Amino acid sequence: MQARSSRAPAHSVCVVGSVALDSLETPRGSVRDVLGGSCTYFSIAASYFAPVNMVAVVGSDFPAHELEFLASRGINLDGLETVEGKTFRWAGRYHEDLNLRDTLDLQLNVFGAFQPKLPDSYRDSELMFLANIQPSLQARVLSQLRNVKLVGADTIDHWIRAERDALVALLPSVHVLSINDAEAMLLSGERNVVAAARRILDMGPATLLVKRGEYGALQFAADDVFAVPAYPLENVVDPTGAGDCFAGGMFGSLAEAKSFDRKALRRAIVYGSVLASFCVEDFGPNRLRTLSRDDVERRFRHFMALTDFHG
Amino acid sequence: MQARSSRAPAHSVCVVGSVALDSLETPRGSVRDVLGGSCTYFSIAASYFAPVNMVAVVGSDFPAHELEFLASRGINLDGLETVEGKTFRWAGRYHEDLNLRDTLDLQLNVFGAFQPKLPDSYRDSELMFLANIQPSLQARVLSQLRNVKLVGADTIDHWIRAERDALVALLPSVHVLSINDAEAMLLSGERNVVAAARRILDMGPATLLVKRGEYGALQFAADDVFAVPAYPLENVVDPTGAGDCFAGGMFGSLAEAKSFDRKALRRAIVYGSVLASFCVEDFGPNRLRTLSRDDVERRFRHFMALTDFHG
Repeated sequence: MQARSSRAPAHSVCVVGSVALDSLETPRGSVRDVLGGSCTYFSIAASYFAPVNMVAVVGSDFPAHELEFLASRGINLDGLETVEGKTFRWAGRYHEDLNLRDTLDLQLNVFGAFQPKLPDSYRDSELMFLANIQPSLQARVLSQLRNVKLVGADTIDHWIRAERDALVALLPSVHVLSINDAEAMLLSGERNVVAAARRILDMGPATLLVKRGEYGALQFAADDVFAVPAYPLENVVDPTGAGDCFAGGMFGSLAEAKSFDRKALRRAIVYGSVLASFCVEDFGPNRLRTLSRDDVERRFRHFMALTDFHG
Repeated sequence: MQARSSRAPAHSVCVVGSVALDSLETPRGSVRDVLGGSCTYFSIAASYFAPVNMVAVVGSDFPAHELEFLASRGINLDGLETVEGKTFRWAGRYHEDLNLRDTLDLQLNVFGAFQPKLPDSYRDSELMFLANIQPSLQARVLSQLRNVKLVGADTIDHWIRAERDALVALLPSVHVLSINDAEAMLLSGERNVVAAARRILDMGPATLLVKRGEYGALQFAADDVFAVPAYPLENVVDPTGAGDCFAGGMFGSLAEAKSFDRKALRRAIVYGSVLASFCVEDFGPNRLRTLSRDDVERRFRHFMALTDFHG
């Protein structure tokens, strides 16, 4: 794997979510059964910064070379169960407007009976990210940690509608909620993003990250707002996984910094934007297969140049 | 008027465009015959920074107290013709999604025969802004200047469709084109904003400003990209004029700085964002009636805090 920073060891990040095989159609082409899932994208992105402990399930059909790829990124796979059967599959088609997509097919397969269990070696992870899965499973994972310092969570419109009570019950245990703008409106019942943020912060999380795709992201806390534009890209091939890479880059950076203060959070959000910007440049996580930490740092510096009007 | 900076005198900004009386319906309420028009919003916003020379036409029904308001902002009205008849009127209704609006009524009135003429005292203006009017009128005004150092222009989808040739003929004389993202796509024929910017820069302007409403703005030049988020606002009453205030704040700031280099342009774009953010807080230009330069500076500093991840 790529060398990480040579400073004192980073905190480790535990993540639970889906590992999938995706079939994707975008205006730039189509692919079948590529590596996908919220846990996958998060883990790869976070692995640029810190040790990652993955909790997920795959079927017996999951390609051995993809396990090798994840291991080559230094991702701990002790918590990745392999179960007889087929891996979770998702098929989607993006519109010319890449902000819109249709689900063509969804097969839960072995994911349908997933009961996440943390290996003992994971229980001291300092950071936990509850990537997009059923809120009750997110809560079950969280209860298994002994020493967690920062809890992040993502969710989607489906859970906000179908399991609102379980989600709302989880929120007081979440420090950083990471959702997109449509989800923030749905969860809050508001139409304005600032009003939505105020309501959601009242529900528990100290920090809300609102992801706005090609328009960037907003981070809200009780006494602070941070806005970051997205990196302007001409070559957008496939948006799948961008939000998970954002969260992975962010939590990886926080684990590396071992600090969750205002400055560390803002830098982490920019690293999240950087990872998301690389993710969309190829199908699935393919761009990340060759991406180096140096590439990440170079784009971080581009972000500084892109947004600087201070000096 | 408000005191401007006590530094050496700023350049002056000449602007041609519409002065109107607008009737507006937004989810927050409705108003009739409020001060409107691209030239009006631009002039008020620019007047916080530099002397403004306005070129426009109104009818004999135009309220005297609005002329007094404009004069109180230090705006030179020598080029504001008053013609027997009615002032240009526009009526519009905004959707719950404030990015969408319908034109309910449009009466050109005295604006229909507008032939802009620059008073001799305007001809040495160093900055010229061609606010949204017919491209052939924009060209006519430009030809009357003797000493112009920086030319900006705005336009709308209507002129891109109906007078494309005249608009394209104007672009090589324009240094800064300021349009919104839908207009950039329409003008370029592209679907991606980076690709659109490349094509539009090839048509003449050295700098393209792409306004994205609540998502901020992007500035493109041959070798530079700058991204600024919009100021997150909970209280958005009426988006009318925000784009014109953006351009006015930007060109006013450039006139005050008497520099058009990279740093001055970036600061000017942030001042444009600041003026646009105030504009939408009340109907028409009403928020600007009581706004002070101190208020502007305070929000500029908030913008720095909002976007800073450097230190």
